Amino acid sequence: MKPHRIAVIPGDGIGQEVMPEGLRVLEAAAQRFELPLQFDHFDWACAAYWQRTGQMLPDDWFATLSGYDAIYFGAVGWPAVVPDHVSLWGSLLKFRREFDQYVNLRPVRLFDGVPCPLVDRDGRPRKPGDIDFFVVRENTEGEYTHLGGRLFEGTEREIVIQESVFSRHGTDRVMKFAFELAQSRPRKHLTVATKSNGIAISMPWWDERADAMAQGYPEVTVDKQHIDILSARFVLQPTRFDVVVASNLFGDILSDLGPACTGTIGLAPSANLNPQRHFPSLFEPVHGSAPDIFGRAIANPVAMIWSGALMLDFLGGAIGADTARHLQAHDAIVAAIERVLVTGPRTPDLGGHASTTVMGRAIAEQV
Amino acid sequence: MKPHRIAVIPGDGIGQEVMPEGLRVLEAAAQRFELPLQFDHFDWACAAYWQRTGQMLPDDWFATLSGYDAIYFGAVGWPAVVPDHVSLWGSLLKFRREFDQYVNLRPVRLFDGVPCPLVDRDGRPRKPGDIDFFVVRENTEGEYTHLGGRLFEGTEREIVIQESVFSRHGTDRVMKFAFELAQSRPRKHLTVATKSNGIAISMPWWDERADAMAQGYPEVTVDKQHIDILSARFVLQPTRFDVVVASNLFGDILSDLGPACTGTIGLAPSANLNPQRHFPSLFEPVHGSAPDIFGRAIANPVAMIWSGALMLDFLGGAIGADTARHLQAHDAIVAAIERVLVTGPRTPDLGGHASTTVMGRAIAEQV
Ligand SMILES: CC(C)[C@H](C(=O)O)[C@@H](O)C(=O)O
Ligand SMILES: CC(C)[C@H](C(=O)O)[C@@H](O)C(=O)O
Repeated sequence: MKPHRIAVIPGDGIGQEVMPEGLRVLEAAAQRFELPLQFDHFDWACAAYWQRTGQMLPDDWFATLSGYDAIYFGAVGWPAVVPDHVSLWGSLLKFRREFDQYVNLRPVRLFDGVPCPLVDRDGRPRKPGDIDFFVVRENTEGEYTHLGGRLFEGTEREIVIQESVFSRHGTDRVMKFAFELAQSRPRKHLTVATKSNGIAISMPWWDERADAMAQGYPEVTVDKQHIDILSARFVLQPTRFDVVVASNLFGDILSDLGPACTGTIGLAPSANLNPQRHFPSLFEPVHGSAPDIFGRAIANPVAMIWSGALMLDFLGGAIGADTARHLQAHDAIVAAIERVLVTGPRTPDLGGHASTTVMGRAIAEQV
Repeated sequence: MKPHRIAVIPGDGIGQEVMPEGLRVLEAAAQRFELPLQFDHFDWACAAYWQRTGQMLPDDWFATLSGYDAIYFGAVGWPAVVPDHVSLWGSLLKFRREFDQYVNLRPVRLFDGVPCPLVDRDGRPRKPGDIDFFVVRENTEGEYTHLGGRLFEGTEREIVIQESVFSRHGTDRVMKFAFELAQSRPRKHLTVATKSNGIAISMPWWDERADAMAQGYPEVTVDKQHIDILSARFVLQPTRFDVVVASNLFGDILSDLGPACTGTIGLAPSANLNPQRHFPSLFEPVHGSAPDIFGRAIANPVAMIWSGALMLDFLGGAIGADTARHLQAHDAIVAAIERVLVTGPRTPDLGGHASTTVMGRAIAEQV
């Protein structure tokens, strides 16, 4: 079969440090499971490129990247050089929108060997397996907009309006993805994040769209929860979740909070999917560029590596791909992560002394 | 001195069950510290009143309640009878807005005797005293609006716009309150919740207002954090917070998440303040009417009682009031809560077998 064409963009900060480990593990998996992966490297979407060119991406970025099946992305953001709104809206948030990656899929899973900050009501540690769910985040519209403005700017009377925009097209398709995912899982449970008691126009409508979609999935149990109490339940009752669907903002919050509840956002991967494969999907760690720890070779590579596993899983769904083998590769990588988290070597964030590379190598060897 | 006039509104569900305990404790404190409290009871703002009259409040509610110094409020919401948007926007959210209660102050504090769901990185339980901070929430504007609408309603092309509105007037005054509070505390640390990297109009402006206000408080250290990572840090590093200032929505989320991190939102109190005392302030538990446990006499009365303590503290700041004695009363109530949480009797949510009344009486006796 044709190789999967993968655009590799390490970006800024620890993105550059974890990317080689992600690639190392992907190459090990490609070899073992005979997957045809072809990597092309790009030095765009980072502070150095911006300093050189005054932009985050070249003019032909869209045409160039459109030819790829996936983008394997490190992290972007180096506020000492480029203001965040320039770097983020000029790369990551642009990719999500222009490549219509409307699902941001983020697994939340407690691993053995990772100290969990939560205990249950009897003070007992939460067990791996108890926390294992997905956050499905709308990734192209909603609360993240530049619409609105300032009136009486700079005066005491100043008023600022910010608009959120939800479309039925955009909402229904992410709901559908979440319902399908819930339907495919043993518990078939979907939590819908809302705030219809306070945000009075968009959120009641969001609830209606969830109700409408639920008609088509009679086996899925649906639970609408306001974002305030839902956040509280992530901490108090994390075992009750299976699939959680949320707007762009609420999904952003829940997909940092969820991983925090399993010990660290340093492990959390994410898949920015265009499920129809009209455009490349993008796979990236949830953590950012972490300027504070850059250059010390202590960044944990697991989120990058796990994001690579999600990428293989997704690529396996392409027409002509050997789906089973891709899935095996995904599972082998996750299993390798699981083993190394227990046996080590581990990076300092997990209480170990290993460097990024040492931990990455160990995972690659286990694959 | 003139008595403090307090309007008592138990509202719906467990609001009715915890209110008598709140009053019991307030009366005990009034007696011991010789505080002049006068209570008037209102049966408004509940499903029964709505069923009888078709509205949540009588036409002259504003004039009537304006004569009070404070509103002691139970809970509102009984969705089986009144749709939530009717009951909430027709009472609680109306009070907050029309009485210009622009600060929603919510303490987050870990008590001895309450099982904490968090452990530190070494798996050790968090200790009482380690978590002790305030969420200062903007309470009248921001994300909670009815502005916006639906275009192409009911069709596939449907688009929904939701507007958030921030004014400099509204933002600066809540920032000022938060800076003053931080300034008055030993650590003098203020965390500003934001999301300026995604919500591109209002949140960068919110950051600017924080920066401008910070000029006037050189002793306060200010830390702006995006709401996603901030939520994660509530779980992973809860000891780092002192005062957190947030918009209406973000404050709503953080003031459920914070109490969850200290074991239960069943204990959390809140003060809806009009600091200038042009209008009555409102004191209420963070928990709602909890239809699922109503009628079983098992509701935990602590949030109601603690809200009463916050009320005394605030009333003590009125012109002519004996501030010190009010503060002593506040402290005595909180100390009584602390003792009963350790020694019992405790309600079932805390692993005990006591009823609401038994626990309320025990606290009143300790005052
Ligand atoms: C960097 C930021 C704009 C981004 C977001 O809010 O989407 C990040 O937090 C994420 O979750 O991917
Ligand atoms: C009931 C609801 C409208 C309210 C809010 O969101 O403000 C509640 O959650 C609170 O925090 O007081």
